Amino acid sequence: MHAYTHSTSFSTASKSFSVKGTSAHNVFASFDIFKGKAALSLDPVLPTFTKLESGNLVVSRRGVVMLKFTPAIGERKYDWEKKQVFALSATEVGSLISLGPKDSCEFFHDPSMKSSNAGQVRKSLSIKCHADGSGYLVSLAVVNNLLKTKENFIVPVTAAEFAVMKTACSFVLPHIMGWDRLMSNMPTVVGGQQSKVVPQLLDEWDR
Amino acid sequence: MHAYTHSTSFSTASKSFSVKGTSAHNVFASFDIFKGKAALSLDPVLPTFTKLESGNLVVSRRGVVMLKFTPAIGERKYDWEKKQVFALSATEVGSLISLGPKDSCEFFHDPSMKSSNAGQVRKSLSIKCHADGSGYLVSLAVVNNLLKTKENFIVPVTAAEFAVMKTACSFVLPHIMGWDRLMSNMPTVVGGQQSKVVPQLLDEWDR
Amino acid sequence: MHAYTHSTSFSTASKSFSVKGTSAHNVFASFDIFKGKAALSLDPVLPTFTKLESGNLVVSRRGVVMLKFTPAIGERKYDWEKKQVFALSATEVGSLISLGPKDSCEFFHDPSMKSSNAGQVRKSLSIKCHADGSGYLVSLAVVNNLLKTKENFIVPVTAAEFAVMKTACSFVLPHIMGWDRLMSNMPTVVGGQQSKVVPQLLDEWDR
Amino acid sequence: MHAYTHSTSFSTASKSFSVKGTSAHNVFASFDIFKGKAALSLDPVLPTFTKLESGNLVVSRRGVVMLKFTPAIGERKYDWEKKQVFALSATEVGSLISLGPKDSCEFFHDPSMKSSNAGQVRKSLSIKCHADGSGYLVSLAVVNNLLKTKENFIVPVTAAEFAVMKTACSFVLPHIMGWDRLMSNMPTVVGGQQSKVVPQLLDEWDR
Repeated sequence: MHAYTHSTSFSTASKSFSVKGTSAHNVFASFDIFKGKAALSLDPVLPTFTKLESGNLVVSRRGVVMLKFTPAIGERKYDWEKKQVFALSATEVGSLISLGPKDSCEFFHDPSMKSSNAGQVRKSLSIKCHADGSGYLVSLAVVNNLLKTKENFIVPVTAAEFAVMKTACSFVLPHIMGWDRLMSNMPTVVGGQQSKVVPQLLDEWDR
Repeated sequence: MHAYTHSTSFSTASKSFSVKGTSAHNVFASFDIFKGKAALSLDPVLPTFTKLESGNLVVSRRGVVMLKFTPAIGERKYDWEKKQVFALSATEVGSLISLGPKDSCEFFHDPSMKSSNAGQVRKSLSIKCHADGSGYLVSLAVVNNLLKTKENFIVPVTAAEFAVMKTACSFVLPHIMGWDRLMSNMPTVVGGQQSKVVPQLLDEWDR
Repeated sequence: MHAYTHSTSFSTASKSFSVKGTSAHNVFASFDIFKGKAALSLDPVLPTFTKLESGNLVVSRRGVVMLKFTPAIGERKYDWEKKQVFALSATEVGSLISLGPKDSCEFFHDPSMKSSNAGQVRKSLSIKCHADGSGYLVSLAVVNNLLKTKENFIVPVTAAEFAVMKTACSFVLPHIMGWDRLMSNMPTVVGGQQSKVVPQLLDEWDR
Repeated sequence: MHAYTHSTSFSTASKSFSVKGTSAHNVFASFDIFKGKAALSLDPVLPTFTKLESGNLVVSRRGVVMLKFTPAIGERKYDWEKKQVFALSATEVGSLISLGPKDSCEFFHDPSMKSSNAGQVRKSLSIKCHADGSGYLVSLAVVNNLLKTKENFIVPVTAAEFAVMKTACSFVLPHIMGWDRLMSNMPTVVGGQQSKVVPQLLDEWDR
């Protein structure tokens, strides 16, 4: 699911450096809400970067928060083969985390957009607040005209569970945007061995 | 994990590098609220991960925020032998951090659940707001039918102390969920020396 | 800094370790809002530090959140040559992240302030809420008396997009202030092999 | 001001490891509010840890957010020799970050508490909101009975500047509590080369 191609290049570069080994693997730590009719799982998916010839990195695929819906097939049993996913973009995550206890929202996705199958599959995610502000009904509808199928998943989410979703999504939002990389990767020390100071006359920096 | 595995490789490279040593040890930094009848301490407990044969990591035990209640036995003296703990799950932490100044909540735990002693010990944690919004009464009741004991701890928590609890719990929530590991462990650079870009046609990613 | 200096040492130890290479390069991960008449992009710019002779680091240039406005020149086409920038200081970022759904604000910059051209170029950024709280109009006006030009950029920003801006700006604020450096750089372990405890009698620390 | 003794042990262990060198130095990145009569600067001060014989780390001195007040002695000139400090504890930081636009608070410190000079010096910090919610008056009074002096500092703080203070203080709160160390230092991978899973039967963990 995630793209780990770079790890290959690490391994070429320095076989015995153990960060390489582990960093090439997945970590599974989804936040799961198991309810009677379906389960809802949240997983952040980080953006991928492409290295330009200059050595600079540019985001090549935006990160998302992946929602997985899985139907129940018995008590505490879920059929993971029948899961459906809905990938929240940064802006959709922005909607989710700014949702008040009396707010609702809905998103529509066409996973085949821009392909010849555009319009054949429609996914809609709905987050509907309870009238008393005690939580939300989160539901996903997937209409597939190619397979002539309609699927519906409904997961009631309590205010506490939604608070976890909001806090966790606020935490990951800068990461799926790639802004954490801006922070940790950039060398910001001026001077060092040369002890020279970078001139400060950049437009809009020296007001 | 990063620091941990890292340290292993450092130890090969430089046996005496002391970060390795410390990173294998515990850090004690509980947030303590000392009051007249009892003390309340908060400690985050990180999740543990199991390494699968594939090399992937999966959460094997969820993290919690551990609350410790200790009875006072004199002025500024507390009997740590008689402490009782209550482990807040991610969702219970979600309740706590979304609690408004006029909100209250209560949680019930059975530490022997799923064992033959199920139902013999009951713990209930109550967070009750003051009517004027100036703080909370946090109390833990432990009823142990096996030992025929009943214990009660009451700690008044000011609005400022509760603000610390909320901020600190919001900070640790993604960590006890293991989501920080998703962030720091994954190599997300595509290309590298080969400068190839991973195709972007994953379902729900290319809308 | 950490990653940076680190990389130097890696390069001695293992020349081909590719993290080294990347950490010295720029990362591009702006948050872009593409609208009909113009695009708005946000990019954090970290502060730079100067190393004093004592080895201490001092902020030499404050970080900012850089806003870039680019005019549209066709459907989904923007003329990046004609972009105008506006650099939000920490305090201006403070204004932005504390803006309620019914609040507006405006900032004025003179990029040539303190030079002989002071007053010749005036930039004003306006963030105006919609009356119904559904979003904002973000606009930049640049009046250049030297070139006899007036430019205007208007980008409607939805509540969800603004939530992303606020969350991302809250995340980066401590970083553009340099406070993340205070956190990650400092060794705070007292004792170590000697197991000695530092005296605690500093003014204002031992109350 | 900070205690860097541990860095010495790093340097013994591995002289050429460059993190050591830089991590032994201070970083200066205070948030400064310069006003007509005085300047107010905020600086986080991290906690220090003591290494126990077991190798575990325990907080030996709590971190604070240090407020520095400096009187103005001319236009944009401040007399740093006459600065007075006030160290906000975690709980006081909790008060500050939970302060609404119409809230005020006041703290009292006796820097000589528990010494023979107790009561001779009294510091009081007051954060008073403007009636219209547009900001605060932050003032420090220091009464020194030993030196027969009374000092007063008043710094008007705008809502935007206070938003920066709140966001930055929320960011550092877990760090001055030492909770960031709990996160980054702990090895949480179970298994690894041995591939064994830690038993999960800790009280309150297996509900």
